[in-house]
Amino acid sequence: MGLPSTLSGVLAFDVGGTDMKVGIVTGDPHGTDIAVKDLQRHPTPLDGERSGDTVCARIVELTGEYRAAHPDITITSVGVTVPGIVDEVNGIGVFSANLGWRDYPFTATLTQALGLPVAFGHDVSMAGEAEFRIGAAVGKRDVLVLVIGTGIAGAILCDGRRIAGDGYAGEIGHAMVPAPDGSLVILESLGSAGAIARRYAQASGTPVEGARSVLEKSQAGDAIAQQIWADAINALAFSIAQCVSILGTETVVLGGGLSMSGAALIDPLAARVDELLTFHRRPQYVHAVLGENAGLIGSALKAHTLTEPAKA
Amino acid sequence: MGLPSTLSGVLAFDVGGTDMKVGIVTGDPHGTDIAVKDLQRHPTPLDGERSGDTVCARIVELTGEYRAAHPDITITSVGVTVPGIVDEVNGIGVFSANLGWRDYPFTATLTQALGLPVAFGHDVSMAGEAEFRIGAAVGKRDVLVLVIGTGIAGAILCDGRRIAGDGYAGEIGHAMVPAPDGSLVILESLGSAGAIARRYAQASGTPVEGARSVLEKSQAGDAIAQQIWADAINALAFSIAQCVSILGTETVVLGGGLSMSGAALIDPLAARVDELLTFHRRPQYVHAVLGENAGLIGSALKAHTLTEPAKA
Repeated sequence: MGLPSTLSGVLAFDVGGTDMKVGIVTGDPHGTDIAVKDLQRHPTPLDGERSGDTVCARIVELTGEYRAAHPDITITSVGVTVPGIVDEVNGIGVFSANLGWRDYPFTATLTQALGLPVAFGHDVSMAGEAEFRIGAAVGKRDVLVLVIGTGIAGAILCDGRRIAGDGYAGEIGHAMVPAPDGSLVILESLGSAGAIARRYAQASGTPVEGARSVLEKSQAGDAIAQQIWADAINALAFSIAQCVSILGTETVVLGGGLSMSGAALIDPLAARVDELLTFHRRPQYVHAVLGENAGLIGSALKAHTLTEPAKA
Repeated sequence: MGLPSTLSGVLAFDVGGTDMKVGIVTGDPHGTDIAVKDLQRHPTPLDGERSGDTVCARIVELTGEYRAAHPDITITSVGVTVPGIVDEVNGIGVFSANLGWRDYPFTATLTQALGLPVAFGHDVSMAGEAEFRIGAAVGKRDVLVLVIGTGIAGAILCDGRRIAGDGYAGEIGHAMVPAPDGSLVILESLGSAGAIARRYAQASGTPVEGARSVLEKSQAGDAIAQQIWADAINALAFSIAQCVSILGTETVVLGGGLSMSGAALIDPLAARVDELLTFHRRPQYVHAVLGENAGLIGSALKAHTLTEPAKA
């Protein structure tokens, strides 16, 4: 009690196509006192096929800066999340269209450079992991986490275990859905916040700031906005119903910018999913609760499993 | 060598909507010497909501007959598979449209009546389990087993584990696919052997014996048969591509009557799935190898896990 307490934490990096977020995640990994300290955002140092090297070098540099800035906190491990196809088991960034690497050994490179345990994973999978373990889906066994923003990505829990598929699972944003004209397109091209804004601008000739603005126009009676919003709902419902049919999904966690639309999203979505199912059970819909730091928190949770004794 | 050997086996029942198959499954559950002895087929005793009771009574009766007929074989356990929604963990037949029961406690009822360990499961899931463990998908981790006959059912392996979804997983035959007219219909209504024969008869006014006959007409230049075969391929490919996108499926095991079409099914199917994917990995297609006794064998494999010490 009288001794100075030493705080420990995981330094977590969420590497995106433009920025990388960094922060120290502290708190009990099983509990509710998780916090992200000194959250920073830095440009991702892109260098084509050599981006794996430049990103790792920047991570090493920033780790040094965080250690210097926070002498009171013991950094016990590092968590790193990246987009694209990720081989979590072997710690490899298999492929990222936006960042350029192919088969880059992140875990091996960073473990050697930092001398710390490194938890490496896919950004949306790790965000899903966080929602499964301490967020919106605690206690659920069959879950789809849909992160709906500029694009759409998913994380999937079946029978209480997150599905990896060697890094290929969760690419629901690139699954086919029927378009209004009868063609087949990827879910992302109709159901994402980015697509909603882009399609409205194309159809109306009026640029809009984002999907929220299209929703507002829709609610104000704009027929074009109503159609585009309905197209998005239909596309999202189609993909959710696929998961329910194939996997028995019981809980859908909605995250990303579009999930902020609340009942205007969830009510018609649930109604449309219901129409697409027969004897299947109906899923419940819940909001993601960990916000935009879910990826950082998920990688920290994974990092804890590297440094803590295993628990049943 | 000189002593009389005592054979042991699992008495396995595959209960269908019309018939129930019964046989003694012998052999090493990890090996290749699995055999089904004295395979019999009996009418399923249907009695509406009381079908759970009548089916269990018949299983008890048949167990007595098999014991009397095979005094040289020690029946160590019983395996039972049923269609519909099955809660494997609690041994409950949750629901079967064709057989009539709701929440019937098969495992408890049979364990008490027989005094033997009872392995209870879903028919297609158990057939999938057999293909995963000793059949076409040995060594694979991300697998879709599609049993295409009168209807379509699936079994799904993710990251090396069969997905249960509380009994609701695998209902891919009732997942939506786009129909040729732009509407949404369930996969089974376009892609099953039953649908192919029925749709051809409706479109041509000429009854056919089965899907194989439609394929033969298609290969002989019948335009209606070609269209209906193409519709089936498109529907099956759509659902397979959903699994690849969502789960990273790497192996598709094709079983049931339609799989006997061989390359006439697989070649156009693989080509169409390829068109529906982008950066995803492409699945391999293999034939189910355990044939129509896969369900019996799968339930026997499950029964072995009840009576053998666990292995890692």
